[in-house]
Amino acid sequence: MPNQTVAVLGLGAMGSAIAARLRDTGHDTAVWNRTAAKTAPHAEAGSRAAATVAEAAASSDVVLVVLLDHGSVREHLEPVAAELKDKVVVNLTTTTPNEARSTAAWAAEHGLTYLDGAIMATPDMIGTPVSRLLYSGERAAFDAAHEVLATLGAADYEGEDAGLASLKDMALLTSMYQLFSGFIQAAAMMRTVGVPAVATAGEVSGWLGAILPHLDQFAAVIDSRDYSGGQSADFTRAAIGSLITASREQGVGADFLEPLLSRLDELSATGRGGADWTAVNEQLAIR
Amino acid sequence: MPNQTVAVLGLGAMGSAIAARLRDTGHDTAVWNRTAAKTAPHAEAGSRAAATVAEAAASSDVVLVVLLDHGSVREHLEPVAAELKDKVVVNLTTTTPNEARSTAAWAAEHGLTYLDGAIMATPDMIGTPVSRLLYSGERAAFDAAHEVLATLGAADYEGEDAGLASLKDMALLTSMYQLFSGFIQAAAMMRTVGVPAVATAGEVSGWLGAILPHLDQFAAVIDSRDYSGGQSADFTRAAIGSLITASREQGVGADFLEPLLSRLDELSATGRGGADWTAVNEQLAIR
Repeated sequence: MPNQTVAVLGLGAMGSAIAARLRDTGHDTAVWNRTAAKTAPHAEAGSRAAATVAEAAASSDVVLVVLLDHGSVREHLEPVAAELKDKVVVNLTTTTPNEARSTAAWAAEHGLTYLDGAIMATPDMIGTPVSRLLYSGERAAFDAAHEVLATLGAADYEGEDAGLASLKDMALLTSMYQLFSGFIQAAAMMRTVGVPAVATAGEVSGWLGAILPHLDQFAAVIDSRDYSGGQSADFTRAAIGSLITASREQGVGADFLEPLLSRLDELSATGRGGADWTAVNEQLAIR
Repeated sequence: MPNQTVAVLGLGAMGSAIAARLRDTGHDTAVWNRTAAKTAPHAEAGSRAAATVAEAAASSDVVLVVLLDHGSVREHLEPVAAELKDKVVVNLTTTTPNEARSTAAWAAEHGLTYLDGAIMATPDMIGTPVSRLLYSGERAAFDAAHEVLATLGAADYEGEDAGLASLKDMALLTSMYQLFSGFIQAAAMMRTVGVPAVATAGEVSGWLGAILPHLDQFAAVIDSRDYSGGQSADFTRAAIGSLITASREQGVGADFLEPLLSRLDELSATGRGGADWTAVNEQLAIR
């Protein structure tokens, strides 16, 4: 049996998957949930059911926090700061980068060893080769908990700023939801001529799969800040304008494309219509 | 030498690549361009430079139209409708579905054999195994020109409605630009903590590459119109709200995600907050 004992706070779908994986890898685990009934199947499977957060933490080296949101993290950790002092607290709850930074600051004030994490996996992926988790905050906390963390999936340390794991998570989710909205609009357009969404999914998947490897060319332009080559903002404005027209003419709203058109309009209005259209990335900066 | 002779109208980057590919595959080609100087390198390479559209068409079985836009197609074809009568006219110019339908209707009025096409390739891809072109309109026109079309790339016939090739093209471009905007926002978010866009490109490419195969699960829900399972609109609203907050807190505008949030808000406001969030596809219908 591994040396480290682990508390899992929160037994939603993700917390439950994590507790199960820890048991499967031979860890002594204590579990706690706001609604105590949820601990029963875990107790039956070999975990220790704790009546309070303090009780779960008391017997554990590593405390994994998998709660609903930032508010519930603070609600349940603040009263037991003293009891968490010689533990490694790893907060896997989905929070924004600034929420992660705020909890890290609170932990530092109370002398806690704190790490923030982001889970790039669904519950059923936990512990499989496709599971990946990002961590940021104290390097010492990451190293101390590494054996436990590695059982959940690939464990990537992003840096000392506790917000980094969440930030990368949210950047990737941002790209994911825009991929999804693009697919949803494409499917809606094709359904107007009787093409089922499954057929469009195959088309979109093949097309975007071929395009993904080329993102690094856009990236190189963005990093260089040299927007003198490539497809111009004005050309792209016209192309997006056509897409919006085509979508509406088929009876499908094109709202998802409108902010990009607005940003391209801005570029053009500030005399940069001839610049590579990826210069829109600079328009996003809030001044 | 293949039997069919071909005219290429328009010698921009795409028209030039097409003319070159036709020469390389042994076709007798005539080329025309609004600015005549552009025909010179093609004449040198073995094409016949035509001074007028009518002259280019006169010697050709298949007329490939690769002009700037719908307006220029009509401007240059309308005066020579009579001369195009026993040719197969294939319009590869990027137009909207309704523009394609309008040109098809004009061609039918004048007894022309007309096909509309959409090029799913960049000029340097023409004639390579990754080149793909979509065609719609008269099946007979597609069959008659097939030998020529097949030299340019995989030739897919989409159906009799002349707008279908353009519609699929535009649906795929719609998904592509939303992929791009998602990447651009993700890169902007990560650059605020010093991560170069090339690093984010690698992350996004890997992440979305893993997600693409799952689009068919969304598609199955959309096709079934059974939104009773899956991730709810309300959960997704909260997630998108967090992404918007996180992006703004890093100093990066989150406009690209706002229309999706608005559509999810609509779902919730109409009592469908518990439905699978992909139900937003139905919100896009213009009533």
